[in-house]
Amino acid sequence: MQNFNFHVPTKILFGREKVNEIGKEIKKYGSRVLLTYGGGSVKKIGLYDQVVNQLKENGISFFELSGIKPNPRVTSVRDGVEICRENAIDFILAIGGGSVIDASKAIAAAVNYDGDAWDFPMQKAKVKDPLPLGTVLTLAATGSEMNGNAVISNEETQEKRGMASNALRPKFSVLDPTYTFSVNKYHTAAGTVDIMSHIFENYFAPGNGTFVQDAIAESIMKTCLKYGPIALEEPENYEARANLLWAGSLALNGLTLTGKMMGDWATHGIEHEVSAIYDLTHGAGLAIIHPVWMQYVLTEKTAPKFAQMARNVWNIEEPEDMKAAEDGIKAVRAFFNSLEMPARLSDVDIPGDHFDAMAEKACYFGKIGSFKRLDPKDVYAILDKAL
Amino acid sequence: MQNFNFHVPTKILFGREKVNEIGKEIKKYGSRVLLTYGGGSVKKIGLYDQVVNQLKENGISFFELSGIKPNPRVTSVRDGVEICRENAIDFILAIGGGSVIDASKAIAAAVNYDGDAWDFPMQKAKVKDPLPLGTVLTLAATGSEMNGNAVISNEETQEKRGMASNALRPKFSVLDPTYTFSVNKYHTAAGTVDIMSHIFENYFAPGNGTFVQDAIAESIMKTCLKYGPIALEEPENYEARANLLWAGSLALNGLTLTGKMMGDWATHGIEHEVSAIYDLTHGAGLAIIHPVWMQYVLTEKTAPKFAQMARNVWNIEEPEDMKAAEDGIKAVRAFFNSLEMPARLSDVDIPGDHFDAMAEKACYFGKIGSFKRLDPKDVYAILDKAL
Repeated sequence: MQNFNFHVPTKILFGREKVNEIGKEIKKYGSRVLLTYGGGSVKKIGLYDQVVNQLKENGISFFELSGIKPNPRVTSVRDGVEICRENAIDFILAIGGGSVIDASKAIAAAVNYDGDAWDFPMQKAKVKDPLPLGTVLTLAATGSEMNGNAVISNEETQEKRGMASNALRPKFSVLDPTYTFSVNKYHTAAGTVDIMSHIFENYFAPGNGTFVQDAIAESIMKTCLKYGPIALEEPENYEARANLLWAGSLALNGLTLTGKMMGDWATHGIEHEVSAIYDLTHGAGLAIIHPVWMQYVLTEKTAPKFAQMARNVWNIEEPEDMKAAEDGIKAVRAFFNSLEMPARLSDVDIPGDHFDAMAEKACYFGKIGSFKRLDPKDVYAILDKAL
Repeated sequence: MQNFNFHVPTKILFGREKVNEIGKEIKKYGSRVLLTYGGGSVKKIGLYDQVVNQLKENGISFFELSGIKPNPRVTSVRDGVEICRENAIDFILAIGGGSVIDASKAIAAAVNYDGDAWDFPMQKAKVKDPLPLGTVLTLAATGSEMNGNAVISNEETQEKRGMASNALRPKFSVLDPTYTFSVNKYHTAAGTVDIMSHIFENYFAPGNGTFVQDAIAESIMKTCLKYGPIALEEPENYEARANLLWAGSLALNGLTLTGKMMGDWATHGIEHEVSAIYDLTHGAGLAIIHPVWMQYVLTEKTAPKFAQMARNVWNIEEPEDMKAAEDGIKAVRAFFNSLEMPARLSDVDIPGDHFDAMAEKACYFGKIGSFKRLDPKDVYAILDKAL
């Protein structure tokens, strides 16, 4: 087990009607709020009105940035920064899923920074004195509601890059499972894949002796296995939605990474290149690529960890590691298929035209991955196998 | 799953030599420290000198309260409060296990309070404006390093009572597994039982639909099962000590309680009455009482949860719930026996003389327990079966 720091001060307000506590929480930090959201769904489910009432009842002024799209654009971020500066905003409240939260973090980081918001994802600037933010989550997937990470896209350069800072962890996040009742089958499935993929990224990583962390990671995988299919079939099943929602936050708040030098994150890197160009739903892209990555990095050396997952999560009793590993990877693919997620890039009409460029861009800062280091040739091969 | 708040802002500094970061951390909060510890063991392992060097290097003044005993006395707490007031202390640094940390929390709570420190455990006062505190942990057991709880004893009245406030969560805790290398077999075993017992208290509790929390609880139990015996046989096995140490913090930081109305805590309540009079090591007392409590509260209604533990933690394949539950409870007893923990009160020379008084005092504030409500007659019966 490696040395680590673990510091997750985000306050979680979990359950029905917890949104009614946000006024009290926001007033600890500010009184002029930028409200960020995506399309009309937060209005359709009545959440927007509830939030606005809360703000008004608590005497909090607010301004709005709406229309934040999936794979959020740096152009939206720049718009948000401008609104914040013009209106002396002192708190950002994100209502939505990962895209809205991530865009809000990027805005929070850039408001008190002299340069351009794109400098953070490009690692040209470090986050300092960001605005405080809170979230009201509407999708079980991202983990962004309890961590300091954000992923932003640049349409001009067709790039999609991550940024991270502990200072960007939300002050609070409201997790009310009923807000996820209206999430459709496709996005419920993609969210479930996203949660599992976050677990995979930290589970299949170098190091050993992290029994308690890995057992917790396996618990979260099993939660997805159990409740993903139920949420698809019974969208208003509170128990299923609640377990997925809390699992999503625990999957990526740092807990399963404790004691490890680093996660792998090659699959996310590769998927980002695909969705930077094709605007594919993140979880659907991961469903295609993660099992291909697993098969690609499977060697005698990595087999024991895949076998561990196979036995502890998928109840595969095969005693031989390589065979168990292969069975485990097949089980992951079969599970994603059962959620009606795509299995190949061609299933979602993505051709091989840009694989060369994607592979180069994925390795823009050097080789990617830690479980197995990958260069552009490897990335190309993975994309090709995923076609 | 019940609504919940989860807010654990304690910063964990985990691993070898992490104590060298405490100066930086303390300076965020204060510059005049009360250093609290127990006997000579923190000096023997060199930890005291390391801490003092850190404080001196960072220009932090410090005063000392040593000699804090297991089952810490309110008299020690009062001594600490006096030192804090006389010397304008603005931060408390606890070096030790649960007793030292708990006493330090009670001091922190009482310094800015007008009445007596015993008012908090007696629920006559609420914690307000406590001093901030940090901890350097030397034993895998308590969980106190990451929560807001403390248990204090009163020799005069032969009472042992808990107090709790989120405001008492340590600002930081240093968890260096090497400090636990010198913990002897008996206390290593008692600490392992304590961790499992904390898990039991929140696992066997009313409510349902908490799959992810229960799976995480089972992960922590399995960690104790795996590494308790290894730590006993190989006291300097870093992996074993590290897993137990992190498991101990995760067992009682609130994570496994999320989504439940409340934990049970009857067993802790009963054990406190025993050790209030006989000064028994807490974990050894729990090893005696917890399996007896399990058997006592086992009914058709509670059997499924015991059966769940039996199957998921102890790999018991018995399909019938009541039978599986009984096998699971036997497995718990057998495991505690394998750690050479006592199984009966008579094993540690505790007679039945005070059972009446203990049963009354355990129910001082009313019935105890939530999985099954217990009155003094029940508590007496449990003590009697534990004799």
